Amino acid sequence: MQGKFITIDGVEGAGKSTQIDFIRGYLADRGIDIVLTREPGGTQIGEKIRELLLNADANMHAETELLLMFAARNEHIHTKILPALAQGKWVLSDRFTDATYAYQGGGRGLDNKRIKQLERWVLQDFTPDMTMLLDVPVEIGMQRIASRAKDRIEQENLDFFQRVRNAYIARSEQHPERIKLIDASQSAKNTSNKIQAILSDL
Amino acid sequence: MQGKFITIDGVEGAGKSTQIDFIRGYLADRGIDIVLTREPGGTQIGEKIRELLLNADANMHAETELLLMFAARNEHIHTKILPALAQGKWVLSDRFTDATYAYQGGGRGLDNKRIKQLERWVLQDFTPDMTMLLDVPVEIGMQRIASRAKDRIEQENLDFFQRVRNAYIARSEQHPERIKLIDASQSAKNTSNKIQAILSDL
Repeated sequence: MQGKFITIDGVEGAGKSTQIDFIRGYLADRGIDIVLTREPGGTQIGEKIRELLLNADANMHAETELLLMFAARNEHIHTKILPALAQGKWVLSDRFTDATYAYQGGGRGLDNKRIKQLERWVLQDFTPDMTMLLDVPVEIGMQRIASRAKDRIEQENLDFFQRVRNAYIARSEQHPERIKLIDASQSAKNTSNKIQAILSDL
Repeated sequence: MQGKFITIDGVEGAGKSTQIDFIRGYLADRGIDIVLTREPGGTQIGEKIRELLLNADANMHAETELLLMFAARNEHIHTKILPALAQGKWVLSDRFTDATYAYQGGGRGLDNKRIKQLERWVLQDFTPDMTMLLDVPVEIGMQRIASRAKDRIEQENLDFFQRVRNAYIARSEQHPERIKLIDASQSAKNTSNKIQAILSDL
């Protein structure tokens, strides 16, 4: 039987890493074999592209960033995600295409139609079975990651992340069946309880 | 006045580097300021993508390779080629989009329609003013580079390069106005003479 493809997304400081640990434990208790992965990255080539994206000069052309994101995603889908699903494993990815609409679309201001063209080229009709979108006000997210070293994208200003958050929320309104918008502004335990309620229906 | 964008292309061992030197000298004598560049590469980001493309694992998904080529090309066009042309400089690029049709299309067997979709996305209607396609039989090209260390793509077999050469020739037949097919199987001097005759008309 084909496995399920779940993605988790959200702004910096939403608590993705903590909830990924929770999800892995919860699904393991149900006997489900789950592959954890992330974007950009998840493959040998993808991790090298990730390095380029996060460490390179801040003045990379925005559409170069977009093409690199989709190059990494193409490798990820074909060499890791699809093979695992075909083996009946579940796959949980820390970020996926929704992040592209949020960061390159909302954050950088690229036209969603242009993003959609590349999405169709790379993904055709492949899409996650479910996306958990952890939502927190940008100020709370920033406070949570204040002590962390920042990469090229995390160094953007508050207004950038406000646009990213708004774009994520807009995505969840356009895809209400797939994307579960989860208020992650309270404790990690509170967020885990909400995720458990969603997963128990899956 | 807008400068001219010239590209030079062809299989391994066709003699591009030697002829680039010749062209630079010839145009300098005519008082033309020319920027030399190359693909994949030509920019800081592009050279890092080049490293990925030429040194990475041989089992990269063919469409990942294609997306990386266009990511590097996007950066090249927007941050180097268009600004130089706008300043009235001429630009000579060692390889450009025709190489993508030859290597990823002919060599790897990717569908030209899929390549065309990405080409339109990245280039819109931007195209070289002239392309010099140096053509040699694959065996001669291989003999000429026999002593060179080979990168990931140069390690492909003779049949791969035969498909590359055929695809280049097909491109020149589809774009006879832009692409000048030049027999480069004789001496470097012989090839330079042919190039000079073409350039003197430009």
